[in-house]
Amino acid sequence: MAKKYVSRRNLEFMLYEVFDIVGMTQYPYYSAHNKKMFDMTLDAALKLSKDLLNPIFEEMDRQGPVLENGKVKVHPMVRTIMQRFGEGGWIAAKFQEEFDGAQLPYLIADACNFIFSAANYSAHVFPGLTSKAARLITSFGSQEQIDTYVPKMLNGEWQGTMALTEPQAGSSLADITTTAVPTDKGYYLLQGQKIFISAGDHDGVDNVVQMLLAKIEGAPAGVKGISMFIVPNQRIAADGGLEPNDVTITQIYHKMGYRGAPITELSLGEKGDCRGWLVGEPHNGLSYMFQMMNGSRLGVGMGAIGISSAAYYAALDYARERPQGRLVPDPATAQVPIIEHADVRRMLLFQRAFVEGAFSLLMQCCRYSDLELAVEGEEKEKASLLLDLLIPVAKTYPSETSILSTSQAIQIFGGYGYCEDFPVEQHFRDTRIHAIHEGTTGIQGMDILGRKVRMKGGKAFTLFVQEVNATIAAARALEKLAPYADRLATALEELQQVTEQLKGFGEEKGTRAMLADATLYLEYFSLIAIAWQWLLQSIAAEKALAGKPSQSNQQFYQGKLHTTRYFFHYELPKTAGLAQRLKEQEAITLEMEKDIFND
Amino acid sequence: MAKKYVSRRNLEFMLYEVFDIVGMTQYPYYSAHNKKMFDMTLDAALKLSKDLLNPIFEEMDRQGPVLENGKVKVHPMVRTIMQRFGEGGWIAAKFQEEFDGAQLPYLIADACNFIFSAANYSAHVFPGLTSKAARLITSFGSQEQIDTYVPKMLNGEWQGTMALTEPQAGSSLADITTTAVPTDKGYYLLQGQKIFISAGDHDGVDNVVQMLLAKIEGAPAGVKGISMFIVPNQRIAADGGLEPNDVTITQIYHKMGYRGAPITELSLGEKGDCRGWLVGEPHNGLSYMFQMMNGSRLGVGMGAIGISSAAYYAALDYARERPQGRLVPDPATAQVPIIEHADVRRMLLFQRAFVEGAFSLLMQCCRYSDLELAVEGEEKEKASLLLDLLIPVAKTYPSETSILSTSQAIQIFGGYGYCEDFPVEQHFRDTRIHAIHEGTTGIQGMDILGRKVRMKGGKAFTLFVQEVNATIAAARALEKLAPYADRLATALEELQQVTEQLKGFGEEKGTRAMLADATLYLEYFSLIAIAWQWLLQSIAAEKALAGKPSQSNQQFYQGKLHTTRYFFHYELPKTAGLAQRLKEQEAITLEMEKDIFND
Repeated sequence: MAKKYVSRRNLEFMLYEVFDIVGMTQYPYYSAHNKKMFDMTLDAALKLSKDLLNPIFEEMDRQGPVLENGKVKVHPMVRTIMQRFGEGGWIAAKFQEEFDGAQLPYLIADACNFIFSAANYSAHVFPGLTSKAARLITSFGSQEQIDTYVPKMLNGEWQGTMALTEPQAGSSLADITTTAVPTDKGYYLLQGQKIFISAGDHDGVDNVVQMLLAKIEGAPAGVKGISMFIVPNQRIAADGGLEPNDVTITQIYHKMGYRGAPITELSLGEKGDCRGWLVGEPHNGLSYMFQMMNGSRLGVGMGAIGISSAAYYAALDYARERPQGRLVPDPATAQVPIIEHADVRRMLLFQRAFVEGAFSLLMQCCRYSDLELAVEGEEKEKASLLLDLLIPVAKTYPSETSILSTSQAIQIFGGYGYCEDFPVEQHFRDTRIHAIHEGTTGIQGMDILGRKVRMKGGKAFTLFVQEVNATIAAARALEKLAPYADRLATALEELQQVTEQLKGFGEEKGTRAMLADATLYLEYFSLIAIAWQWLLQSIAAEKALAGKPSQSNQQFYQGKLHTTRYFFHYELPKTAGLAQRLKEQEAITLEMEKDIFND
Repeated sequence: MAKKYVSRRNLEFMLYEVFDIVGMTQYPYYSAHNKKMFDMTLDAALKLSKDLLNPIFEEMDRQGPVLENGKVKVHPMVRTIMQRFGEGGWIAAKFQEEFDGAQLPYLIADACNFIFSAANYSAHVFPGLTSKAARLITSFGSQEQIDTYVPKMLNGEWQGTMALTEPQAGSSLADITTTAVPTDKGYYLLQGQKIFISAGDHDGVDNVVQMLLAKIEGAPAGVKGISMFIVPNQRIAADGGLEPNDVTITQIYHKMGYRGAPITELSLGEKGDCRGWLVGEPHNGLSYMFQMMNGSRLGVGMGAIGISSAAYYAALDYARERPQGRLVPDPATAQVPIIEHADVRRMLLFQRAFVEGAFSLLMQCCRYSDLELAVEGEEKEKASLLLDLLIPVAKTYPSETSILSTSQAIQIFGGYGYCEDFPVEQHFRDTRIHAIHEGTTGIQGMDILGRKVRMKGGKAFTLFVQEVNATIAAARALEKLAPYADRLATALEELQQVTEQLKGFGEEKGTRAMLADATLYLEYFSLIAIAWQWLLQSIAAEKALAGKPSQSNQQFYQGKLHTTRYFFHYELPKTAGLAQRLKEQEAITLEMEKDIFND
């Protein structure tokens, strides 16, 4: 059965027509690549996802990981996946050539990650996490650490993780209590407990390397006393082999979805011999970890879009084939496929507008990531600031909207969608994790409003407004798009007003008051950012249509224009209520006695 | 562990202070009751739910029904539940005294059903369905049918069901193909297949009585040719015992949630000997079934609210106890319970505003149901029209919003909420069925806009506007509520405009064009209906506060006012975007080539 979970045509449109990845190869950093190689990369990713990941999408859910004799057993194919992702260079895709990496642009590498997530999100977590963990070591580790860990991680022999959360320290990392006591042997002895650690142990690899946050004895309180350590589950023994490192797996969590990946609880140093190697400077761990966290947040956003893409194509397929109801009330006529019904089309357009709009925003972030590496000076700073500003949007809008989008996929299937015979109920369960892990929606809201729009005197926000205005100007030049350009311009102006007003509110009444509805601000900001991305796509589509494309391409571009129309008429209007609420400045949640909840 | 899943205080507020159930006892139909009896009924329902239903909430999910040797095995407690609900008079609660029913007002009977759904939705489906199926027989069946089936159903020995859906006929009931061939023995021989039949078979009862739609040979095409039959899984044999009735259980569905109740596929007449007894007149089955469907739709709404209530109290409990983060950025201070954070409070207020606002709307519908039975003439017609108008709202707003509400409960728990250790992930899975069964959201949207607001020349809608305006007038008289009254008045006026405009659009461009966004119209209408209910509750709270209540009551009433404030400032503004969209009349989903989805 040829199941579709991504649109290759759309990937090409994004890479070549909207974000001009080929133009990236003009920069020395990416000069080794060309379009043919990008095409081959897409082909290879699609094939790998189809051969290896998608066939076990359901199996990995139904037969989740188990903890047996202190060891986590995962689906037997995980070993193959890690090997193939290692051998194929996928784990090292974005790494520099000096680490045997392909030095691929983020644009193409993350387009491939999108494919993998759509095929089987849980399966892709293993190599995905490993790549980000190894990146921390190449960025901040010593040469010895690089030599010891990175090659085995990049070739898929060893798993990488990020180990932050503790029972009393989830959103509040300041409260980490895992301690590290220095020794005179070049390592620290660690003691503590970590919870919710994805892939913290499993039998699909020979070793697991935790990138772990802990506090060195006597460190300053709070986040300024957090250091980063490499804590392998097995450490290298005197004879060069592996020996246990006193990391005990105390439980795995039984989750609603995302079941293929084991989420573990770790106990460190039960025997007093858990060794960790400090990465970089002491007390600087959180700032290092932000590299991985930012990468993971983008990965989470991409994962949510990937899952929703798979659900969307499943629903689209079903809507084309399932006969039910009629357009005329005559029972003597044949039933029509449900895609003929307006309400079904609306649900399909919603999913498409979300999937392709959010994917576009993630590609925009990839472009900034690529520019960060490729350019210097002011351009580099600009890319870096825009990326920073957009990370909470790129993480949260997909995570939250994917709940609704996969839910609409279920709705199109009706009762069947609620049953295990179709994949959409799993998509709905799988994607629910995304608004939680790597910083909850609430944390992301505070990040954008409390930090990002204000950092460097509001420079990132100003740059964002310039970027959107540039797109608006380009769209105004195209007759058909001018009305959308006007709508977005109005929305953008209001966003600026609301932002200024909230900043003023913060100065007047304090940060807590300003941030009370930060989550709604993030939702509001996101709708405008996605509208921007649809306008950007529309410009590319309009230009392509002017060049007399083939019939199928014409349909594709018309689809882009129509989905833009959907977004501007159905989704962007949601900003009206949000702006109204955000402008009121009635601190309803703060001026509240919590005793009102007593009964 | 004393887990809370409903607020008794709120039930009393609704019954006694907002909807004046005691006033109902002035009518002869309800004159046998008094407040003391209502209190005792609430006590009994709470105790039953706590002793019998809630303890197996998780077990029924983890150990779902199985089909073994053609027989469905359910949780062993189901038999006890049916017995106790039978003996206790719960299945017969709303039935007239002539059927040994308690003739309880809907207000109190459905408040109890809310309690049962909150404790364990799946478990309550067994007696709940039986009650509605028996009601069909007492309403439309012959005396012989009543004597044969009703006593055993009302005492919990036999299960009742509604058997409508077929593989090709879900939303489109016109396409039912199950056939009924008359015999000269007083019964029909049935042949066909039914799918998605809740409790279509199980070993918790001695027999299952399907209230089944089929077409008599030669019947008119479409919905006008549908008849209703009683089809027991076991029929009464010549010796007075039970013998198989050629109903085969061909599969049970594996569902994402709502797992405690078996959903079955039935094959009728594989051996040519499946007997059905016609209920009422031939070809009139669908109109009879609407009695049960309307009841079921209200039951679905109530179920969604019940589930969300349980999730809300679980989240509230957790939010009070879980320390995480601080209000001041000083790591030397202790962490605060997360209920101190504005974003968590917003999520709690959202859940409460939904649960108590939607419950209030359901109580409003119960009040109309009670009046329908208690009064005559114009008042009866008024109650009946208002109930009819509000059924799609009462079914759909809770069903759709419960997805978001239970999702917010998960969010408050963070990672823990995604795991099976806490009940909220099950609530999230369980409630997702509600937007699908008993008429999807799309069907309900078409019902309200295509039928209900237009029926009898728009009389129901006019009555609704009068009802809301009466509440607005009462609120205006109270200084604190006047601003909310104004807001609702504005929203109500706009609703009238939008409704008129859509009706005009229908006359101009046809029904299909008018109904294209019917789902959004229903959402829009619902927000205004719930705002009305909050205003109604506020009036009762304001009046009570004027009477110097106890401290705990004061907090309770303040909570009502504060949640009203939340609803008017955070939820009602969502009408802005919806009204904007609905007024545009751009037929985006109709003017669409479906080929745009090709790539």
